[in-house]
Amino acid sequence: MELERIGALAQDSDRKVLLYVLDGLGGLPMEPGGPTELEAASTPNMDELVRAGSCGLHEPVAPGVTPGSGPGHLALFGYDPLRYETGRGVLSALGIEFPLERSDVAARGNFCTLDADGLVTDRRAGRISTEEAAPLAEALDAIELDGAQAFVRHVKEHRFMLVIRPDVATGADLADTDPGLTGVAPAPVRALTPGAQPTEKLVQAWLDAANGVLAGHPHANAALLRGFSSRPDWPSFQDVFGMRPFGAAAYPMYRGVARLVGMQAVAVPEDPESLVGELKRRIDEFDFFFLHYKPPDKAGEDGDFDQKVAYIEAADRIVPDLLGAGADIVIITGDHSTPALLRSHSWHPVPFLIYGGAARSEPAQRFGESACALGSMGLRRGRDLMPLAAARAGRLAKFGA
Amino acid sequence: MELERIGALAQDSDRKVLLYVLDGLGGLPMEPGGPTELEAASTPNMDELVRAGSCGLHEPVAPGVTPGSGPGHLALFGYDPLRYETGRGVLSALGIEFPLERSDVAARGNFCTLDADGLVTDRRAGRISTEEAAPLAEALDAIELDGAQAFVRHVKEHRFMLVIRPDVATGADLADTDPGLTGVAPAPVRALTPGAQPTEKLVQAWLDAANGVLAGHPHANAALLRGFSSRPDWPSFQDVFGMRPFGAAAYPMYRGVARLVGMQAVAVPEDPESLVGELKRRIDEFDFFFLHYKPPDKAGEDGDFDQKVAYIEAADRIVPDLLGAGADIVIITGDHSTPALLRSHSWHPVPFLIYGGAARSEPAQRFGESACALGSMGLRRGRDLMPLAAARAGRLAKFGA
Repeated sequence: MELERIGALAQDSDRKVLLYVLDGLGGLPMEPGGPTELEAASTPNMDELVRAGSCGLHEPVAPGVTPGSGPGHLALFGYDPLRYETGRGVLSALGIEFPLERSDVAARGNFCTLDADGLVTDRRAGRISTEEAAPLAEALDAIELDGAQAFVRHVKEHRFMLVIRPDVATGADLADTDPGLTGVAPAPVRALTPGAQPTEKLVQAWLDAANGVLAGHPHANAALLRGFSSRPDWPSFQDVFGMRPFGAAAYPMYRGVARLVGMQAVAVPEDPESLVGELKRRIDEFDFFFLHYKPPDKAGEDGDFDQKVAYIEAADRIVPDLLGAGADIVIITGDHSTPALLRSHSWHPVPFLIYGGAARSEPAQRFGESACALGSMGLRRGRDLMPLAAARAGRLAKFGA
Repeated sequence: MELERIGALAQDSDRKVLLYVLDGLGGLPMEPGGPTELEAASTPNMDELVRAGSCGLHEPVAPGVTPGSGPGHLALFGYDPLRYETGRGVLSALGIEFPLERSDVAARGNFCTLDADGLVTDRRAGRISTEEAAPLAEALDAIELDGAQAFVRHVKEHRFMLVIRPDVATGADLADTDPGLTGVAPAPVRALTPGAQPTEKLVQAWLDAANGVLAGHPHANAALLRGFSSRPDWPSFQDVFGMRPFGAAAYPMYRGVARLVGMQAVAVPEDPESLVGELKRRIDEFDFFFLHYKPPDKAGEDGDFDQKVAYIEAADRIVPDLLGAGADIVIITGDHSTPALLRSHSWHPVPFLIYGGAARSEPAQRFGESACALGSMGLRRGRDLMPLAAARAGRLAKFGA
């Protein structure tokens, strides 16, 4: 259902909703017939919530599609990632927690190398080191423009973020200057809509200045830009679900995505106990809580099955404390699968459980991929979890008379 | 997900994908509690692929909707049949493998009978025999027009295909002249859009000439036309999935649908072994293989349960050879159900299996409707099978950062 229609049904309730995200939770057996990471883990608390609650599988974006972290989280917040897309520039800004204003135009930048004829020889400047690139980004941050402010922040290695903050709001719809291949010149700065023509002039002026600063540098003598975008103007989570939302995450990217839908988001240490502390402190002030736990995804990306199992077990141990802190309705799931077998995100459906509120009997006896495949909630799109949890919290009114 | 968005994610891989279609595969028990045709069949090879792979059910078009062969196959190719519709004229041309050019306007024709007042007395000319109708179609094929070529091909009994190939491309959006009932005059030739007005004139000229040729014939003294349409301009299968596609089918209709999405398609004898030979010959030249096996559908249409069982068993015997020929990811399914009990296509979900690539444990132990209803892949739309198979082949990149 579209967010606007959910918003029309939202009603008040005193029940608190918790979304506890175990990043990259879904997994695969290392050998045919074996358990997944979640199935190998001892998770007595989550198993208990499954038996007393409900479980199923969700696909965050679409069948067969491997989600990035941004789309995966938007789905869990109830936003269809195919409809609510963010540009790479905005994602770069989110990833370093740059405070984007509504009129800002953000781009992802690469340091690159051009030959004497101005043709790209390396789009990533030989993956220049962070040590060497950071001072270059600082030098670019000093560039001053007429009609706008310009901000540059170093991200990592050859990557930086550019934000143009125009004195008068203007469009962000510009073509990439990164040609995507070597042996050709960078593409010209070019507005794709009439409304973006003032931005084209500003970016051209910035790029001329930047290439002047970089000229003659032996490892990075030019800059490429792509993913021009502005902070999207989406319905806020609070407008949609009628809950005051709060997020806690150790990594800036996840706080950024939470803020994109209007959540108040804070940084926390990476351990699960810190998430409990944050929930306890904020329980009266907010109605919805997004707690992000990153380690299972990192272990999956490292191909470390046993470590992922251990992180899932650590995540399980705090579950009683989360309930004790006052969470009435609890969703526990991942934003995507990250099987250690594949060492990467994958398209496989993600197990989820919803606990609290009125529920039918659950045939599944534990939290795991195979059990959830036969769980009472079925196979869902990721965006459907929030309405299902909101309903259990008594926060969605009847549709029609 | 829309094809355009899948196309944006397509990436290269060396894994080959095989779609083995057992036409009309899905069935029904002949009596309550009995097995379906597939469940009655001994299919050790497909059962093994289920246990080592994954299975589920798919609905080709939408819940409760009985698919025709065209929509059923488009769904299996990844094209939502509700969005990618073909006119009946184009389907007629595909069915007889007429080489449609982009500017051709095709229509389905019926021989009919009019009374002395010009009112339709039989829309199908008493289902005139093929022997009697074929020479009439040949006579109509000789009609010459100013500003266009016209082609007539006999199809079967009262059915023929008309193609107008205008010297200057023009629209195909014309109303049917077939009134759909008797006791009234044929509807006038009428353009539904300004762009189709030149076509209206051409078709009127052709119809006047045709009715002149037929006038006085005792069993078929006029022609009715419907389903005016041109070959659709859809994204090609190769653009969407990044695979060079190849199809082999004994019947022209299926080759035609394959060509509609840009596949290279060849005729093969009807036995399963010929499909293996074709796959072996083409394995290096293409990345995707559509092999079509018609007999189960024919047996279902004949109401012959045992014959359908035997055909399914024959289809099963070549499965090891298909894998041996180099298929890495294998989909085996039908384009719709054709239960012998109903002697027709039906709306019942169709069992499917996907083998190869990273998969979770599969609770189903054999290939059959009841087992697939509890299979790990769930109940899907037909169009979702291709993205799921492409993901397993490593051919879909991550969505978003």
